[in-house]
Formats: sequence, C-alpha cells, structure tokens
Amino acid sequence: MALALSLGRRAQGNAWPNPAVGCVVVREGRIVGRGWTAPGGRPHAEPQALAQAGSAAHGSTVYVTLEPCAHHGQTPPCAEALIDAGVARIVVGVEDTDPRVAGRGLAMLRRAGIEVVTGVLADRVVQDLAGFRLTRAQGRPWVTLKLASSFDGRIATATGESQWITGPAARREVHAMRMRHDAVMVGAGTARADDPMLTVRGMGNVRQPVRVVVSRRLDLPLSSQLARTARTVPLWLCHGPDADGPLAQAWDGIGARRVQCAVTGGQLDPGSVLRALAVAGLTRVFCEGGGALAASLLGAGLVDELVGFSAGLVIGAEGHPAVGVLGLGRLAEAPRFDLVETRDLGGDVLHRWHRRQGGSPVAEAAVGQGSPAG
Amino acid sequence: MALALSLGRRAQGNAWPNPAVGCVVVREGRIVGRGWTAPGGRPHAEPQALAQAGSAAHGSTVYVTLEPCAHHGQTPPCAEALIDAGVARIVVGVEDTDPRVAGRGLAMLRRAGIEVVTGVLADRVVQDLAGFRLTRAQGRPWVTLKLASSFDGRIATATGESQWITGPAARREVHAMRMRHDAVMVGAGTARADDPMLTVRGMGNVRQPVRVVVSRRLDLPLSSQLARTARTVPLWLCHGPDADGPLAQAWDGIGARRVQCAVTGGQLDPGSVLRALAVAGLTRVFCEGGGALAASLLGAGLVDELVGFSAGLVIGAEGHPAVGVLGLGRLAEAPRFDLVETRDLGGDVLHRWHRRQGGSPVAEAAVGQGSPAG
Repeated sequence: MALALSLGRRAQGNAWPNPAVGCVVVREGRIVGRGWTAPGGRPHAEPQALAQAGSAAHGSTVYVTLEPCAHHGQTPPCAEALIDAGVARIVVGVEDTDPRVAGRGLAMLRRAGIEVVTGVLADRVVQDLAGFRLTRAQGRPWVTLKLASSFDGRIATATGESQWITGPAARREVHAMRMRHDAVMVGAGTARADDPMLTVRGMGNVRQPVRVVVSRRLDLPLSSQLARTARTVPLWLCHGPDADGPLAQAWDGIGARRVQCAVTGGQLDPGSVLRALAVAGLTRVFCEGGGALAASLLGAGLVDELVGFSAGLVIGAEGHPAVGVLGLGRLAEAPRFDLVETRDLGGDVLHRWHRRQGGSPVAEAAVGQGSPAG
Repeated sequence: MALALSLGRRAQGNAWPNPAVGCVVVREGRIVGRGWTAPGGRPHAEPQALAQAGSAAHGSTVYVTLEPCAHHGQTPPCAEALIDAGVARIVVGVEDTDPRVAGRGLAMLRRAGIEVVTGVLADRVVQDLAGFRLTRAQGRPWVTLKLASSFDGRIATATGESQWITGPAARREVHAMRMRHDAVMVGAGTARADDPMLTVRGMGNVRQPVRVVVSRRLDLPLSSQLARTARTVPLWLCHGPDADGPLAQAWDGIGARRVQCAVTGGQLDPGSVLRALAVAGLTRVFCEGGGALAASLLGAGLVDELVGFSAGLVIGAEGHPAVGVLGLGRLAEAPRFDLVETRDLGGDVLHRWHRRQGGSPVAEAAVGQGSPAG
C-alpha cells in the first residue's frame, strides 16, 4: 500500500477532476503491475496496473488507495475489470465518498467472491486524497497557502522588492509543490507587482497547473506575462459581477477563462471563489499570496495547509506583511495550525502546518471514515 | 575535548566576567578529573579538575578549552598549577586573546617540558567562547536576539495580547537559553506592556542572569515586577544622559543599577549600550525584544545570533511586528544570517541563525585564530 500511495502521489496535480489514485498488482510476492491515474483523470489506476500484469493478474492481490469505481462513466467500472481479471484479493486504502460509488465498488467485488480488506494506511490515503474528498464533502478544493518571507514575516521591502528573499533550493521546492497541485492561485496585487508566470519550471515536461488570479475588477495588465501566455497555459480569472464588460471581452479574446464569483463586504468572497473552482473541477489549489488574499482565506477558515519558507534576513516593519489585516478581536480567535514538518532547505527553513484538528473538515472526514470500513 | 566543551557550557551565563571554560584530566585512558569555571568566574576550571585528580594528575593529559592563564590575578596562574601537578601533555582548544595571556600560558607550559597541542575542535570552542572573545576584541558582548512570533511574524495582537503565542516547550527552552547568558535584555516598551520578571524559572536553583532594561528616560513603573524584585535579582537600567534626576534617585533607592549611555538620533545608541554592558563585565546578552530594540540592534549590525520560535497561528498585519522599522533602501542591505538549526519544539518551530560570515567579527576572530596555533 505504501507503494500504491507513492504511485498515486505521482498523479497529484495531473488527475483533476478525478482523484489521484495508485494501484499495485502482486502475484506470489512479485509486483506484476503498477498504475496511477493518467493525466486528466483517465484511464484510472486499476486498468493500467491490470494491463501491465496481463494474465498474471489471475489469482493476484491488488493494492489500491481508493475504492474501485462501480459506475459506468466514460470508462467501464474498475470493479468489473478487477473481477474479469480473476483477482483473488483486494486491499483498499479508503472507501470512496462519491455518492456514485460509496461502498458499491466493494460490494460488487465481494459478491464476485473476491476477498476485500479496507482501511489499510487509511490516514495517509485520506491525507493524499484530501482535495478530492473536500470537493465531494464541502464543494471546495484543498487549499495550500505558501508564504516565503524574511525572518520577520515580510514578503517584500517597502518599495516592493522581493527577488530573492529565499534561496534557489526553496524556489525549486516551490516548483515541485506547484506541480503537485491542480492550480496555482495569486491575488491581483501580487500579479501586478511581480508580473509572474506561475508555471512549473525545471521539472521536465509536465502538465502545467491552471493559473488562477483573483481580481474583482479584472484590472490586470493585458501586457503581463500571464496574459501573453494565456493560450498555452490555462489562465483563469476569478472576478466579481461588477467587472467591466469590455475588459471581460478582452480577456476572453486572449484565451483566458473567466470565473464569476460573489462579492461580500466590498471584496470577492473567498468561499464563493473556491466553490466556483471546485465546480470547474479543481481539487488542489496552491495559493502563493499576496498578503490580502492570504488574509481573506485565513480569515474565512479556508486554508488547509500552511507552507512557510523563512529566510535568514530581516526586512523590518515597513516591509510588506506576509498576511494582511485579519481583524482578530482576541488571540484565542487566531487561526491555528499543527506542525507537520520543519527542515533546513538550502539554508532557508521550510515549515509545513495543517489546520488544527477539530476545526478541520478533512479531519472530520477522516474520523467519519475510520469506523465503518472492514 | 568534546567533554571539556560540554563542561565549559555548564558555566555559560555563570562565569562572567570570565570565560566559561571546561577542563578534563585523563590518566591512562581514565578520566580522573573534571572542572568548569565556578560561578562568578573563580576558581578557574583547571585547578578544580587538578584537585579532583589529586596525585593522578602526575603524568596525565589535560584537555582544556581555552589556553591556561599565565598572569597573577586574584588567583595564581593556572599554567603554574599544571606544571606543579606534573602534567605530561596539554590539549588546548584555542589560545586566549586576552593581552595578559595571548600565548604566554602556552609558552610557560612548553618551557616546563610539557607537550602542548592546540587548535583541537577550535571552531566549536571559538563559538562557545564568542562572548568573552568579543568583549576583548570589540568591547561588546555577544548578542542573541530571540523573537517568539506567530507564523506571520507578529509578537502580539493589535491590543497587545501575547500570552501565549508559543507553547510550554518553547517557553521552557527560553528559560534554558536565559540561563546560558549573563543577562536578559528588553526594551522599555516590552517592560511596560508585559510587566515581565525576566528570571530563569523551572531550572532548579541557578544564578540568575542580570536583567537589563533599555529605557532612555527611566520612565518605567516603580510598581512593576522588575522594580519590586530589584534587591533580589540584579536589575540594570540603560538610560540616556537626559533621564529625570528624581526618577534616577528612585531607581537607585530600590536597588537598581543605572548604566548611562549615549543618545544618537533621538534614541539610545545600541553600540553605546553594549559597550557599557561589556565594561560592566557582561559577555553574553539575551535580548527578548521588543520590536523597536530588535530593529535598533539589527540595524546597527550588533546581533550575532537570531533565535526564532514560530508558532502555528496567524495574527494578521494589524498585530505588533517582531522587528520594528529598519529603514532599508534595498533588499541587498538587509542584515543576513546563516541557519544553524531548525527543529520541532513541542509543536513550534525553533530556528537558530548566526550572523552571515564575512560581516561577522566572531568569524573574523575565528579565521585569525586558525593559522598561528600549533
């Protein structure tokens, strides 16, 4: 199952709108087939692993991170393929919460006389599939918020200088993280200030994540790098209902996709933005700031994972803050996160945090998952 | 030598104005004596280790982190004691840069026919003795700046609430760090806002570090915890020449020690403050903020070690910044530090940094030390 997990991880950022699943076929102690969800979500992991195994799949044990599907969609159900291949035993990470599956895949397998074991390494599978599960349970994608800042939490000097606060190893890690997400998202201020590409670079020939810019009025420069590359790498613009008509047409004309969202309190509602992105198929969103968008997401309780890169330099209080105004009344109201890891990354500190359990919808989903299986 | 180093470390914070030295006596592969600088700086490490060894010191090898002293002070020179004990071989970490010693101790030992080896684990010894060496080389103590902040670099909410941002393990580590310094220092704003004790607690019966408050006008509440405990734990107040006379008398009356420093640009000059503290005997100062004092020290290039405790909560841009305004023109002017370690400390991230080599006087001292010895 650990191997199936790591195969599934290869599909992260590539499989949306489908879950990134890994599958291993074992016959008499030998691995005879491996598969993971193909780019775009099809074929699923199981038929690829079965095809690799060929006739060796007969009598084999199959390890798969997520319950095999039971419904006829654009492809025949994986449960059927497993039965047809003569598999003897299936070990599953977690059941699928998609209402079209939800235990039916396992039932179909059991009815065919296949031994089914579930809940193996379930915690890790739930973590890896958190984005897919959140879209089904809450109608929004998993949100990772990354902030690269100075020792004192600044993302740029007073004059906006930010290149480079962190070192090459940290910047390379950011590209690897972008690659494992379906989309990279920034606020309009960051798009204007940094004129970024938001692509994955230096990682070989990869499917690029969607680039999402949150801009209520669509008032971004049409001469920006994002605009100029909109035909080759997807560019989605989340905007309010009051965005300027001719501007909207201009963005449509250069190949950007517009996503209309609700406005509350004078700014784009972050919940509405994420719901719209989930409807469009995104399961994992990597937000890279700036401070205003970070504060908006954090204030609404919509950040699942925090990633900090802290550099050994000090910018001072006049620099741009990593997180904008939150409007907390008391310290007890501050959004809290639990440390997952910290390490030295080429001289910068990488620290990753998950939203504190209890307030976390993913944690609740995991608890809900733990009991019925087996 | 590694053992001698760790023994010497036991004296850190206790030995000032003398260096915290460790000493081990080995005879035929067995440790027969151990010593470290006694509280207040005397007796030195060597006579204690020799006394423990007794007659076994004859023909032994002695490991000592710093060159033994050669001058008659309040105690007879250690080099003489080593010769009298009949030691056969001496292994030394680094030479003493104190002009009263500076190679004379080693010369005296060699003249007596003792084999002398120097430069063993010199880098680590230089690091441990950095405070003592800085007072001799630059006339100022080693400065460790500690900042406990939220993920986004805030040390308190907008209303000043700061208890507690970090967890119990981080707070305990702060007490252990205070214990290894000669003094704990804060700015007047922090003293007023937090009404702290600044003592070492929960570490057994220890010699308390001096408590230093930097307050240009001495306008701190005489009812504060610091003031009320000034007779039992040393309280030093660094102030400007323009402090109010009656206030100064009041502080003298309750047992505080006043240290007059120069004012430049409307605030206490941080270099003048540190020079005055070195003259008073301090070799290692642990600064705990607040933001204004941190910015003053960082801006003047007077911070040798940065210690960050980063907690998994977000306070937002309206919170108090960990470091005040620095007034940088360009990112390239930002004070830079090299990462020494990062680890999970009870769910908070501990990260320690040393001033980047090249600009560091300690680094230069270390380079200067490396070549001549031997």
